[in-house]
Amino acid sequence: MEKSPLMSRAERAQMAMMLEVCAYPKPGNVDRCHDYSDTRLEHFLASTILARPAFAAAERTGGRVGSLIKEAVMLTNGHSGGNTHFGAFILLIPLILGGDIEGACRVVAGTDVQDAVDFYAAFGLTEVRVAESDDLDVNDPASIAAIQERGMTLTDIMAYSAPRDMVAREWTNEFCLTRRCADLLHAHGHGREAVVRTFLDLLASEPDTFIAKKHGIDVAERTMQCAVEVLRGERDLCVFDAECVEGGINPGSIADITIAGIYVALGEGWQWDS
Amino acid sequence: MEKSPLMSRAERAQMAMMLEVCAYPKPGNVDRCHDYSDTRLEHFLASTILARPAFAAAERTGGRVGSLIKEAVMLTNGHSGGNTHFGAFILLIPLILGGDIEGACRVVAGTDVQDAVDFYAAFGLTEVRVAESDDLDVNDPASIAAIQERGMTLTDIMAYSAPRDMVAREWTNEFCLTRRCADLLHAHGHGREAVVRTFLDLLASEPDTFIAKKHGIDVAERTMQCAVEVLRGERDLCVFDAECVEGGINPGSIADITIAGIYVALGEGWQWDS
Repeated sequence: MEKSPLMSRAERAQMAMMLEVCAYPKPGNVDRCHDYSDTRLEHFLASTILARPAFAAAERTGGRVGSLIKEAVMLTNGHSGGNTHFGAFILLIPLILGGDIEGACRVVAGTDVQDAVDFYAAFGLTEVRVAESDDLDVNDPASIAAIQERGMTLTDIMAYSAPRDMVAREWTNEFCLTRRCADLLHAHGHGREAVVRTFLDLLASEPDTFIAKKHGIDVAERTMQCAVEVLRGERDLCVFDAECVEGGINPGSIADITIAGIYVALGEGWQWDS
Repeated sequence: MEKSPLMSRAERAQMAMMLEVCAYPKPGNVDRCHDYSDTRLEHFLASTILARPAFAAAERTGGRVGSLIKEAVMLTNGHSGGNTHFGAFILLIPLILGGDIEGACRVVAGTDVQDAVDFYAAFGLTEVRVAESDDLDVNDPASIAAIQERGMTLTDIMAYSAPRDMVAREWTNEFCLTRRCADLLHAHGHGREAVVRTFLDLLASEPDTFIAKKHGIDVAERTMQCAVEVLRGERDLCVFDAECVEGGINPGSIADITIAGIYVALGEGWQWDS
């Protein structure tokens, strides 16, 4: 496949964030046709623009994955739209540092305790939902002490979170869903339609852990089942989308993985512009 | 007014481009709700992302206005959406170089023949509509020779185009409409609604020269009159928008000036995030 030689890794990451949020209709998430009252399209696109220095630093100078995730969160935390891309940064920063999935796996294999400490500082800046079972509470300063005492690396933290968080799980399984997402994009052709179709395929095959943390696993599984019915032609996509938005059921983790998948696919020659 | 200390000039320019294209409903132009068949929302947002190095160079190192406009055009010329922001770059590059309108006026006062030559090279890369009366045809290599022979600076070129082009006119009248646009944004409050209201106010007070070049001055003046009726509550905004899109009547020059006005207003503390 032909590469896109003119785009830097940082630009590919920004393009992926932009293309994901513009694609529609995407059930439950902010997209071109839907805002939430507190988070709007402009917030997602502002973060896309403002995250750039962290991406550029990762591309230009390398650097540590934990502090780069923290930098990206700090750069995009200034608006009222809340955390828009924390999960996406967890995937994009190692992908930019490593270039592609293979390189990202090397980055993930090399994290240390300081990466974990920086990541916790970033996490503390967001309002990301934490499952109640987490004893390493990001709002508890004792957690950082505990991480240091136990000598946990950022990869250990991700392994710890993986059972309940599909974004963290990507760090432990060689970016398995990110790879599947990129493959689906290639299979579905180019442009916006391919993004929507890929998003639906992922939603129909995996319960979204962001939904599970917010509404419980039953709602996450019901959402997955509805996506299956949409793909079978048994349920109307736009009605399903409206129901999700109405209920605040937003598959945020699958959106994060979609961004990572678009980044990878763009690097493999997938065309957004068609 | 409080400044936005965290945003660089380059970021303000990118935010202005993003906020302008997302605002809706804007009669006739690509916005969140409307694409044209050949130019879509994603093309505008891709240019917003990809123009960054030219903006950053203008902010960081200064440089010549003509070559920076050319660089911005080259960076954003790679997609199939055609020229999305040529007029915006003509305004944003001096504004970034100078910081604000006062500084931009100093930049404009200092252009030379090489700026004019570089600008013509940029112009040749676009498909921007040229009025038939122009004898300095950008597709005619003899034009550059003529510019050099006559010793025309880029400011001379803008003065030459000013009677038929409201973007060029900004260079000759101290960014008069850009200033008015920023003042309107401040007057209309914050966020997306203020952008839409400001756009309508401009459309109701000036015939758009992009429409005039494409469809004739009568259509430009009728569009202006329709905007007056929308503001008076005598015409439905969304119906007017649909009619413009249907007829390919897009006020592209007023969109360019709106971007410049948002850039200026952001620097004066106008809040996009509300």
